[in-house]
Amino acid sequence: MAANLKHIKVIGFDADDTLWVNETYFREAESRFAHMLSQFETPNKIDQELFQLEIKNLPLYGYGIKGFVLSMVEMALQLSNYTVSNKVIEDIINIGKEMLDKPVELLDGVKEVLEALEHKYKLILVTKGDLLDQERKLEKSNLSHYFHHIEVLSDKQTENYSALLNHLDIKPSEFLMIGNSLKSDILPIVELKGNAIHIPFHTTWLHEQVTEQETNGKAFFTLNSLKEVIPLLN
Amino acid sequence: MAANLKHIKVIGFDADDTLWVNETYFREAESRFAHMLSQFETPNKIDQELFQLEIKNLPLYGYGIKGFVLSMVEMALQLSNYTVSNKVIEDIINIGKEMLDKPVELLDGVKEVLEALEHKYKLILVTKGDLLDQERKLEKSNLSHYFHHIEVLSDKQTENYSALLNHLDIKPSEFLMIGNSLKSDILPIVELKGNAIHIPFHTTWLHEQVTEQETNGKAFFTLNSLKEVIPLLN
Repeated sequence: MAANLKHIKVIGFDADDTLWVNETYFREAESRFAHMLSQFETPNKIDQELFQLEIKNLPLYGYGIKGFVLSMVEMALQLSNYTVSNKVIEDIINIGKEMLDKPVELLDGVKEVLEALEHKYKLILVTKGDLLDQERKLEKSNLSHYFHHIEVLSDKQTENYSALLNHLDIKPSEFLMIGNSLKSDILPIVELKGNAIHIPFHTTWLHEQVTEQETNGKAFFTLNSLKEVIPLLN
Repeated sequence: MAANLKHIKVIGFDADDTLWVNETYFREAESRFAHMLSQFETPNKIDQELFQLEIKNLPLYGYGIKGFVLSMVEMALQLSNYTVSNKVIEDIINIGKEMLDKPVELLDGVKEVLEALEHKYKLILVTKGDLLDQERKLEKSNLSHYFHHIEVLSDKQTENYSALLNHLDIKPSEFLMIGNSLKSDILPIVELKGNAIHIPFHTTWLHEQVTEQETNGKAFFTLNSLKEVIPLLN
């Protein structure tokens, strides 16, 4: 595999939880949500039900904060058997606004890595979710100038990456994807016979989790921190 | 101006209210919303207040149905002085889900025009709003095969188009934009010295309206229907 890394022309970086903190804010929001509704259900049950509703709404809402907030509002109505107060609904909407307005917290080593790679490779940002929200985070991060451009995908499945490689006009062997999600950043690229480096984040959304069976025998790198890509690629 | 049309290589089509019905569904939703809250305010006042709140939330939420629904929920809380029923909140959320799930209704002459132009020009779809929603509408429309690709912009201001032309690697004189919104599809292109054809739709969101002063002396075509572009471009 290491030999293949010599052919790489374009490196795609996942954004959320690869370059900056994201999932942590969703976990915090869920925890506040469970607390608000604690008179109706246990936190564990609320977490589970919210997750089920998010997955049910995913085909309509897609990824991102706005769909998450709409699912929380719907969940509050259902869990409370239509007795939740208007103030709680307002608090849920405000959780969403706060999330959209959060400062960007870069993960360790991000600038160092982008600086080390920017002249040798074409770097692009490959993310899913809400276009405006991702553009805003990139701007807040002050990392824009490292990237040739930003690709916001509606999902990160094999067909989305296949369209991306066509659009970039490169072969899978010339592409390297770096990200924290095995499901979204790594396995689709492995399937396309591209290159992938997995850098786990301490928190992973249940929807992004995969079984050992799914990763078994798949050819990709796993590193403990982003900085470790520098010796691999230089 | 007509002479300039000879240099065109790429034609950008706006989607909502240029290729298919969109604004009509927002007007319908607003009307249902005003009806639901009729015990608290007059329809006219509700319309006005909702518009103000949407504009206030636009920097955070961006364009699209999900942000619109979140603004309607917030508005219902405020207008009712925090007494609106949970069932009304649920109805608002369901309005949004219905909007996201609507069939696509093509406007008159769309297929004919795309067929007449597809071999002579590179056609792209240039739209703003929610990425997933726009991809879904394009798929439902069965028009995907006419377009080289889809460009979803977070906004349609001069700088967004400027980035698009860079990305397409063409000069403004080689680009023609066709759309229903003077503010979003026409004036930014005129400013970049590109080519633009305005095809008004019967309904325009207040936020997209411009004054006569803003269009005065600006060089663009206005046509009554999409079909009229065929003789202009063939």
